[in-house]
Amino acid sequence: MSSSPLLAQISRLMNEQIPFHRLIGLEVTRFASDISEVQFTWKPELIGNAPQGILHGGVTATALDMCGGLVAIASVVEGLPHDTPAAEVIQRISRCGTIDLRVDYVRPGRGDTFITTSHIIRSGNKVAVARMELHNQDNMLIAFGTGTYMVG
Amino acid sequence: MSSSPLLAQISRLMNEQIPFHRLIGLEVTRFASDISEVQFTWKPELIGNAPQGILHGGVTATALDMCGGLVAIASVVEGLPHDTPAAEVIQRISRCGTIDLRVDYVRPGRGDTFITTSHIIRSGNKVAVARMELHNQDNMLIAFGTGTYMVG
Amino acid sequence: MSSSPLLAQISRLMNEQIPFHRLIGLEVTRFASDISEVQFTWKPELIGNAPQGILHGGVTATALDMCGGLVAIASVVEGLPHDTPAAEVIQRISRCGTIDLRVDYVRPGRGDTFITTSHIIRSGNKVAVARMELHNQDNMLIAFGTGTYMVG
Amino acid sequence: MSSSPLLAQISRLMNEQIPFHRLIGLEVTRFASDISEVQFTWKPELIGNAPQGILHGGVTATALDMCGGLVAIASVVEGLPHDTPAAEVIQRISRCGTIDLRVDYVRPGRGDTFITTSHIIRSGNKVAVARMELHNQDNMLIAFGTGTYMVG
Repeated sequence: MSSSPLLAQISRLMNEQIPFHRLIGLEVTRFASDISEVQFTWKPELIGNAPQGILHGGVTATALDMCGGLVAIASVVEGLPHDTPAAEVIQRISRCGTIDLRVDYVRPGRGDTFITTSHIIRSGNKVAVARMELHNQDNMLIAFGTGTYMVG
Repeated sequence: MSSSPLLAQISRLMNEQIPFHRLIGLEVTRFASDISEVQFTWKPELIGNAPQGILHGGVTATALDMCGGLVAIASVVEGLPHDTPAAEVIQRISRCGTIDLRVDYVRPGRGDTFITTSHIIRSGNKVAVARMELHNQDNMLIAFGTGTYMVG
Repeated sequence: MSSSPLLAQISRLMNEQIPFHRLIGLEVTRFASDISEVQFTWKPELIGNAPQGILHGGVTATALDMCGGLVAIASVVEGLPHDTPAAEVIQRISRCGTIDLRVDYVRPGRGDTFITTSHIIRSGNKVAVARMELHNQDNMLIAFGTGTYMVG
Repeated sequence: MSSSPLLAQISRLMNEQIPFHRLIGLEVTRFASDISEVQFTWKPELIGNAPQGILHGGVTATALDMCGGLVAIASVVEGLPHDTPAAEVIQRISRCGTIDLRVDYVRPGRGDTFITTSHIIRSGNKVAVARMELHNQDNMLIAFGTGTYMVG
């Protein structure tokens, strides 16, 4: 199985099978080892500052963590031999997890649509480090962060 | 107005008026300048790893961020003159916000009830730094973190 | 006094008057509010891993912290009215300081010359946030980081 | 070889064979898997703020990073079978390294003697996480931090 259909399958799993992603409305819109992307739409339940209607910092942290994890997973999957059985790939991914996360909040989370992107900075067979950014639909930078992930 | 009734009022506001806190079920259970505490109960919507039923890292980050913000706000409120009008206190609080957050994930988020505690490490009239921990009902440490908050 | 001669003066002060910068050999090579740069040359005293001759992580952290502080200071200076007396500028700078620093180590610190660059991500009148990178002379990324600075 | 003589040997190596530790004057004063300790004495070369004679933030970062690395190494060594050959232990240690470091600066670094302590928070066979603190001789907290270390 080549990595692309596998990534598509994992992407569906991330969108549909992870309850907290559904609760927030996070959706994988790009999933590759060089760059991954997650989007979500403003809704009243995501508010952290009621008078101003801006996003809760925890929503931002969740989107950044998910997006960094995606690019880390994609780099693991693309590093495996092409004939690795899907079950083995899935098992490998299930061992991945966030070790630590830093979020820098730059501007209040105002907007209609939010786009999180992630890039791999350090890729190893045990640990991966990703950098993430969150922009709104007008390309205003709202937050950025760094995540360290266990990948093996 | 002394700080205690004010803290009780702010605490109610945090529990009832912030939509994302209600979505997750976060509840302020202690709110003072030396230590603050936030609790929540496991529910299926908070799952990040479906096969194992463990908390999403974003839930953990949200609880830590909220709890660190509480202790920062409490230290601001207790530092104000006792006769500060409530409206002025609320306005001062509304200018508070997270500058940056680090979360260290120690163990998978398994449990029925989760308790987050926070302590102030650095308290200034512009910036406060808090340390936070998340344990489950068996006192297992699940995550800890540090938050830097704008407070003035 | 316009900001350029002032920046040149501060830059000399950073190179010559700060003992720990001299001990390591850190030198300001670019100093502006959009990008700042610090360079240093490999020498045996900077080694952290003797058998391999690579930089100590503390050298990397020092260079990143200094470079982030520079760009934060430059943004403060350029934000002041042009006729601000030098003494007042210096006093304002002396109140600046690092609140927190994150360093991500990407590759072992091998090289002859090391170049640290920094950019401002968040600029306010109380707190500034900078992103920094350390490369060697072959443009290999060795480390990157984020610093939060008190600026007012 | 039991772990104690080995730890004593590694401790000597850290004090004498790492040039940057000697340049600053960092000395291992306690080295165990539950708590490790590093001390150093104020000297003019460590100054970061000349008028006030306070420590450079890079000195603080170096001491915290070294101390966190020590407790991570000690936990690796104590986890190995008691009859592991010293050469194999040393080889295992040489693969250890800092993945990321966060430093929170609490107070200006004033003092005569500085004591850094570290505790293990997460101990695994691939990654360890340590928490560190720096106090002066009067037990004033100057900085604290968290380090994530590759240990296998």
